[in-house]
Amino acid sequence: MISVKEAKNIVLNSTQDFGVEEIPFIKSVGRILKEKIFADRDFPPFNRVSMDGIAIDFQSFKNGQRGFKIEGIQAAGSEQITLQNSNNCIEVMTGAVLPNNTNSVVRYEDVTIENGMAILNIDAINNAQNIHVKGKDGGIGDLLIEENTIISAAEIGVLATVGKSYVKVAKQPKVMIVSTGDELVGVDEIPLEHQIRRSNVFTLVSLLERLHIPSETAHITDDKSVLKAKIESYLQEYDVLLFSGAVSKGKFDFLPEVLDELGVEKLFHTVTQRPGKPFWFGQKFFPSKNDENSDKYTVDKYQMNTIVFGFPGNPISTFVNCLAYFYPWYYKSVGVEVEEETVILGGDVSFKPNLTYFLQVKLERENGLLTAFPISGNGSGDLASLVKTDAFIQLPSDKTEFKKGEVYPIIRYR
Amino acid sequence: MISVKEAKNIVLNSTQDFGVEEIPFIKSVGRILKEKIFADRDFPPFNRVSMDGIAIDFQSFKNGQRGFKIEGIQAAGSEQITLQNSNNCIEVMTGAVLPNNTNSVVRYEDVTIENGMAILNIDAINNAQNIHVKGKDGGIGDLLIEENTIISAAEIGVLATVGKSYVKVAKQPKVMIVSTGDELVGVDEIPLEHQIRRSNVFTLVSLLERLHIPSETAHITDDKSVLKAKIESYLQEYDVLLFSGAVSKGKFDFLPEVLDELGVEKLFHTVTQRPGKPFWFGQKFFPSKNDENSDKYTVDKYQMNTIVFGFPGNPISTFVNCLAYFYPWYYKSVGVEVEEETVILGGDVSFKPNLTYFLQVKLERENGLLTAFPISGNGSGDLASLVKTDAFIQLPSDKTEFKKGEVYPIIRYR
Repeated sequence: MISVKEAKNIVLNSTQDFGVEEIPFIKSVGRILKEKIFADRDFPPFNRVSMDGIAIDFQSFKNGQRGFKIEGIQAAGSEQITLQNSNNCIEVMTGAVLPNNTNSVVRYEDVTIENGMAILNIDAINNAQNIHVKGKDGGIGDLLIEENTIISAAEIGVLATVGKSYVKVAKQPKVMIVSTGDELVGVDEIPLEHQIRRSNVFTLVSLLERLHIPSETAHITDDKSVLKAKIESYLQEYDVLLFSGAVSKGKFDFLPEVLDELGVEKLFHTVTQRPGKPFWFGQKFFPSKNDENSDKYTVDKYQMNTIVFGFPGNPISTFVNCLAYFYPWYYKSVGVEVEEETVILGGDVSFKPNLTYFLQVKLERENGLLTAFPISGNGSGDLASLVKTDAFIQLPSDKTEFKKGEVYPIIRYR
Repeated sequence: MISVKEAKNIVLNSTQDFGVEEIPFIKSVGRILKEKIFADRDFPPFNRVSMDGIAIDFQSFKNGQRGFKIEGIQAAGSEQITLQNSNNCIEVMTGAVLPNNTNSVVRYEDVTIENGMAILNIDAINNAQNIHVKGKDGGIGDLLIEENTIISAAEIGVLATVGKSYVKVAKQPKVMIVSTGDELVGVDEIPLEHQIRRSNVFTLVSLLERLHIPSETAHITDDKSVLKAKIESYLQEYDVLLFSGAVSKGKFDFLPEVLDELGVEKLFHTVTQRPGKPFWFGQKFFPSKNDENSDKYTVDKYQMNTIVFGFPGNPISTFVNCLAYFYPWYYKSVGVEVEEETVILGGDVSFKPNLTYFLQVKLERENGLLTAFPISGNGSGDLASLVKTDAFIQLPSDKTEFKKGEVYPIIRYR
């Protein structure tokens, strides 16, 4: 038995680099950027008109001129034109290039246009007004997006602007999610009295979907030889195996034994936490996977090890362990630093066992404060209680009384 | 010109019901549940063994018995067996049905098994211990998930458990995103000096993707007749049109005029806010769409109106207006109530214009407090500044000085 902190350290020391792939930028939301994005030109790339109106030579205004003959129109998307007579003006549209020989824009609201003349209705204008000056937001070569950023809609706009129609992102691990337990039947089946439907694998699929990781699922019967044969092939084929169940002390909990026989190194089994205690974690090292010239396996050179997360089969245990261990493991693997989030405990909690307590909470926001109200479920089997809560608050094992107003880390799942 | 509050009210009074569709539950993450989910059986559905160990008749223990002959094994997923002799025991596995004639489970850690006998190592056990009693978490017919819930991984587990392999969710609106502006070229093109690449449509696609709404995109040249012909067909085909650009006072800002000519009712144009002021909003009512027996259009009876959001073309304006107006419109349309989130302002801000100020902020979390630090961009054209921020704080128009420590609403985009 090790502590949650020790377990997390071991997990975080087993991260992997899955390499980089180039994908269409529009498909990259939620993925991790694996290149620096630089400005390919100044932004704006020209002196850009920022209001619809007229462009003039400010010197004429200073000289007292208030009426300007309209020489032409500079539309957005047209090549730059030139003001021929500095006493005249050019009508300009937002987004257009500022015409040559002009240096100030007066918006339509401040002029009256009649008979081809624009007459100012205002007394004061400024030099260079309503112009978004070339390079003001950034110069060519400026770093716009750091490597290892999680790509969101904001980054998509920048990628489009600089012409990154394809973008380098972290490859996702290839994940197989396996359920065991002969009491489990399919979602579309009617269970017999002693059976229940599979649910943990689908919860895990959805939790991985939040990280934009596609996954496959399988169910293996509680038969040691079948389990062994299947896992042997999964170890070859996948980067990560997530198991739900078969890691406790039961007669048919073959998983630790089978993994040992298949050469998967156990890094720990059982963590001082509730729920989720019988968590098994290990890895299999594939020398052949590390050999770029190997022709035995057609695997990527980045896939050095296969990582095995053996989550306990109770629904809440699987759920919280995926969030508390797999998520940080993934983020570190792809190079993302995630800040710990804290919350104010909204009610007193007493918890005697010498275990880290992942307690389900409902979050409430008021005046910039995030408060977590404990919701008591019926233990680790009570899947329906997850619907009523938003997060787990992590209460440390070295205390037994936790008071309203104290601050603790949380793991949110909404 | 109307206020942000009035604009939002008008937008929220123009919501639509897009109807309901039934989809595979595993595809439903992020969608809005449109049925109540009830327990199809008690949970657990039987007296469920919750620890690996032996099941005994507690009366024998009370009578002083400490060694129990092992009669058999009750595995998870096996039909219930019966203890024949109340002085014996049955080995039981987590998840199994509690055998007939037994009423307490002693975990393996607390027994020694030798020669077919299980000998207790502990002095005290409780009646009914380590049994997850039938119906404890919920009874058949209990409401497990409310209608209008946003489906997350937690709900996926419950849907699987109760056998909802298909689930009713809100249909998504059919959305077309249109950019205008002749200065725009494709992402994979090299712009001429007076051109820039399209970016707003892709930002909008990504913002809608967060709501699991698929969308299509188009670019229309600044030609009134082309604009009119295309919009006429889009109004028929889509539930929502999102425009970026062509709503200001420019000579080529034909959109308001064209929409008017096509019978789209203008509900407002220009809002007292910065950025995003020239926002145009309206709707077209289709009598034929309301007539279920109509054979003119093969449209769904739910598609009564087409809603038009005409966002100003500046990148930040489009971005903030999508979050401030389209998002609440969508959530109300599909029946979801969203709480307003507030935050503590992390620095003084002075803003003189009589406008609601959507100011870009970087969020920091500490001790359960969410604080927003203003990041000054270079105005509404500075797309790259969105990469450095997480949210917009909404500062009201009736004040000009905003002090550190005050609380205001925010609109997050990460």
